[in-house]
Amino acid sequence: MKPIVEIAQRAGVPEEDLELYGKYKAKLAPELWDKVKHRPNGKLILVTAMNPNPAGAGKTLTTIGLSQALNVIDKKAIAALREPSLGPCLGMKGGATGSGNAELLPADDINLHFTGDIHAITTAHNLLAAMIDNHIHHGNVRGLNPKKIVWKRAMDMNDRALRNIVVGLGDGNGTTREDGFMITTASEIMAILCLSENMNDLRERLNRIIIGYDFADQPVTAKEMNAVEAMCVLLKDALKPNLVQTTEGTPVIVHGGPFANIAHGCSSVIGTKLALKLGDYVVTEAGFGADLGAEKFFNIKCRKAGLTPSAAVVVITVRALKYNAGIAIADLQAENQAALEMGFANVLRHVENLRGFGIPAVVAINRFATDLPSELDAVIAMCQRNSIEVAVSNVWAEGGKGGKELAEKVVRAAESNADTFRLLYEDSLFVKEKIETIVKNIYRGSSVVYTAAATKTLKRIEEMGLSHLPVCMAKTPYSFTDQADRLGAPTDFEIHVSEIRVSAGAGFIVALTGSIMTMPGLPKKPAAETLRLETSAEAIK
Amino acid sequence: MKPIVEIAQRAGVPEEDLELYGKYKAKLAPELWDKVKHRPNGKLILVTAMNPNPAGAGKTLTTIGLSQALNVIDKKAIAALREPSLGPCLGMKGGATGSGNAELLPADDINLHFTGDIHAITTAHNLLAAMIDNHIHHGNVRGLNPKKIVWKRAMDMNDRALRNIVVGLGDGNGTTREDGFMITTASEIMAILCLSENMNDLRERLNRIIIGYDFADQPVTAKEMNAVEAMCVLLKDALKPNLVQTTEGTPVIVHGGPFANIAHGCSSVIGTKLALKLGDYVVTEAGFGADLGAEKFFNIKCRKAGLTPSAAVVVITVRALKYNAGIAIADLQAENQAALEMGFANVLRHVENLRGFGIPAVVAINRFATDLPSELDAVIAMCQRNSIEVAVSNVWAEGGKGGKELAEKVVRAAESNADTFRLLYEDSLFVKEKIETIVKNIYRGSSVVYTAAATKTLKRIEEMGLSHLPVCMAKTPYSFTDQADRLGAPTDFEIHVSEIRVSAGAGFIVALTGSIMTMPGLPKKPAAETLRLETSAEAIK
Repeated sequence: MKPIVEIAQRAGVPEEDLELYGKYKAKLAPELWDKVKHRPNGKLILVTAMNPNPAGAGKTLTTIGLSQALNVIDKKAIAALREPSLGPCLGMKGGATGSGNAELLPADDINLHFTGDIHAITTAHNLLAAMIDNHIHHGNVRGLNPKKIVWKRAMDMNDRALRNIVVGLGDGNGTTREDGFMITTASEIMAILCLSENMNDLRERLNRIIIGYDFADQPVTAKEMNAVEAMCVLLKDALKPNLVQTTEGTPVIVHGGPFANIAHGCSSVIGTKLALKLGDYVVTEAGFGADLGAEKFFNIKCRKAGLTPSAAVVVITVRALKYNAGIAIADLQAENQAALEMGFANVLRHVENLRGFGIPAVVAINRFATDLPSELDAVIAMCQRNSIEVAVSNVWAEGGKGGKELAEKVVRAAESNADTFRLLYEDSLFVKEKIETIVKNIYRGSSVVYTAAATKTLKRIEEMGLSHLPVCMAKTPYSFTDQADRLGAPTDFEIHVSEIRVSAGAGFIVALTGSIMTMPGLPKKPAAETLRLETSAEAIK
Repeated sequence: MKPIVEIAQRAGVPEEDLELYGKYKAKLAPELWDKVKHRPNGKLILVTAMNPNPAGAGKTLTTIGLSQALNVIDKKAIAALREPSLGPCLGMKGGATGSGNAELLPADDINLHFTGDIHAITTAHNLLAAMIDNHIHHGNVRGLNPKKIVWKRAMDMNDRALRNIVVGLGDGNGTTREDGFMITTASEIMAILCLSENMNDLRERLNRIIIGYDFADQPVTAKEMNAVEAMCVLLKDALKPNLVQTTEGTPVIVHGGPFANIAHGCSSVIGTKLALKLGDYVVTEAGFGADLGAEKFFNIKCRKAGLTPSAAVVVITVRALKYNAGIAIADLQAENQAALEMGFANVLRHVENLRGFGIPAVVAINRFATDLPSELDAVIAMCQRNSIEVAVSNVWAEGGKGGKELAEKVVRAAESNADTFRLLYEDSLFVKEKIETIVKNIYRGSSVVYTAAATKTLKRIEEMGLSHLPVCMAKTPYSFTDQADRLGAPTDFEIHVSEIRVSAGAGFIVALTGSIMTMPGLPKKPAAETLRLETSAEAIK
């Protein structure tokens, strides 16, 4: 690991614009933006994926590896990534910083408290919650309906016991009401932080958060709770992007990490825009597969921030192809050419969808040590048969060198892209029309069914004048449909919208299909049970 | 503000042992201890206070000012202070970093997230809580009784609605049971962090935490929940002391901040021991008045860490003297010599108590701009009449210069102290005997009355073999008695112990008198409503 001052130098960031957090992490001072904002933007590359098997596709790994590979072929590249959430790190998932020879460093720090951004968001979130209950307790001048508070509490932890709770029990402890905790990455504040252009934008968005409804059923905002200035103070450092490095010393901006279901699943706009001024190529990723991640990256993040991506990478794996053909997880290792062919329909559709946004797509086969050469060859042949650019990515084993072919093809795609990027729908459509557009064009479903509650909320949204907002789909990542077991490239299905939520601060309408969990639980044997202090830390006297 | 690297230099700390958090805050690397541990210790000065009026006595201010004043008279002095809790800063209290010309810098950062220590403690606390409910959810192999879980959840927030809650409602969300949140500073982990000598000690203490009881009513520990290694990882940086500076550039170690009622209310042992190697004088403080703060500083912190204080400062104010004579708050400003005389009984008793520990005491009259010279003179005369060293401290207005006389008297007291420090009671006494010793010798009460529940727990403590632990009294800070309105120097009263708690990890038995609140609420107009971003932070583009 090199000192972060050195990495910053590599990215052209002067030492005076670094706020160091130890020797290997730094926040980038707001003054830096003023110095670089007049530069032309680098090219923005989105790394997305096919629908994954439950083990994941290696999107973060590929993003890191590709940024290294671009440097190997002498392009000045920077990655822009999301911050890992602590809850899943202690739960099922382990880290979220890549691995092998394409890893973010210092991985442990980044996976744990990092520079405190998520803790700051938790605190701002819970301050607002406390001030809501306090407002009701001290006379409720605003006339908040305690049964219609939609602002829950937040914690960066996997803790199922906090999903549904009753608060305010006992004498003098406020109003008794139902409540619940979400994991902090699901907080609207996380989405807001990631979509804000600057502190003033952050403040305006926080002001607009709808925290509940009054007795006349009118929305009540965070602004009315007098909490927003304090929330801005709590978030002032969290709004500054973080700089770290990869195993090969490639600079990486790691900033923000909203959920990819009830939020848009992309790293911060501030971090991405800064990266575009510092690198000729900026590699970023979006959550889940392209049906959710890329669609929201384009229709929410790029729309709001005015970003123009130049190319997309679709990460696929041999295992995920077979999984998408319906092969059981236990049988994914066995050679099965027929299954590869069948599962390839999934890849094909994602590539078509990306082309629909006017974006050239390159398929990256994320290679596992156990992959059979015959199967890799078959997948390459399938891509070529369909005129899809493809490269095997071996960055886990080889680092940047293992991504050279991918990097070259990405550069070619990006250079040949004639600025044809287009959004899928106009702001002016009704929310239902936007949802239908996504369902028909991206998922390839036939129709959308709404619950009565969802329909009622959609009507409220029109009354509130919020129809112009883009839609944030919350859906299973495993299928184009809303059912996790309908794999491959299904057609002719209904999408069931169970609930509509308004994230007026973030600036999108969330359409929930099925039940989306915003507070994960710990598994029987949590990752926390096997975490160990390294020797260095243990030496604390 | 000087760069922290420069302040460190002043304290003889090489740059390589600093882990910077921005330009003005740093953590001290564990390696530093090895370099300095063979040095002789500096002299340890405890700043404590008379029973305060509700506005407080200015203990932190005096601690900071005295450390500056010692430097003014050419002593190499360092302060060792507690970290402010965010909850009260956003609630009633505003900051906790001194003020005027005796302030910690950067005050805003220290009052808010600082270096993330309290967030790390919150996280470690809630990980343990989540793993307890998860253990029950996944089969409860250990046989935990869900109705006898004593480990609550924690948040660094004033939030009365979370005091008493029900968790685990709804299908698949764990076992429904009563629970509650405490403010993080009340977490046993905060007390543990502050009493630990090193990482191994921290681990052993965490292992010993009693989280609840099984169906056979036997204690269950954190160790049995397999959470402790992960908690150590989460706390590895929080265990490192933080270095900041005062308005005059005096180095200050700010580390840890446990409650002064259900915990011992002192900054960390690690920070204090390190400070004693770096300074010839180390000025530290303990929470509340000397009846609680100093008693626990001596009998818990000094006992456990083997520290030998050289002198104590008793901070008094003209207003607190009158308040202790029963004068109403609205009338505290009016000249009232009789009330001063009457209130002085309170000071006298605290000084006597300190002398009982073998510690010379210097009274510091913390001067307010509104104090009448005639009253200041009267208080000085009363001290002199009783052979008590006294100095007016004007550090708020004048900084270190305003504490010169105090500094000189403290140095004289410390130099003349012939190592006569002694603890109040032996480990070997029964818990009831320890409590009685404190009540009779410090509070000057006549007897102790226990509830049936408290008596039952005391019996359990003997059965568990924990009688050797010192006692941590949780009592109102406004009176020597357990009733806030019995001011001055009352005698002949009963102390009512309502509940006994075991902090087996921290290593003390908590005796609660009356109802002690571990989760504060927000006032009608919280300080959060008036927090504002400074211009510099607002410039974020």
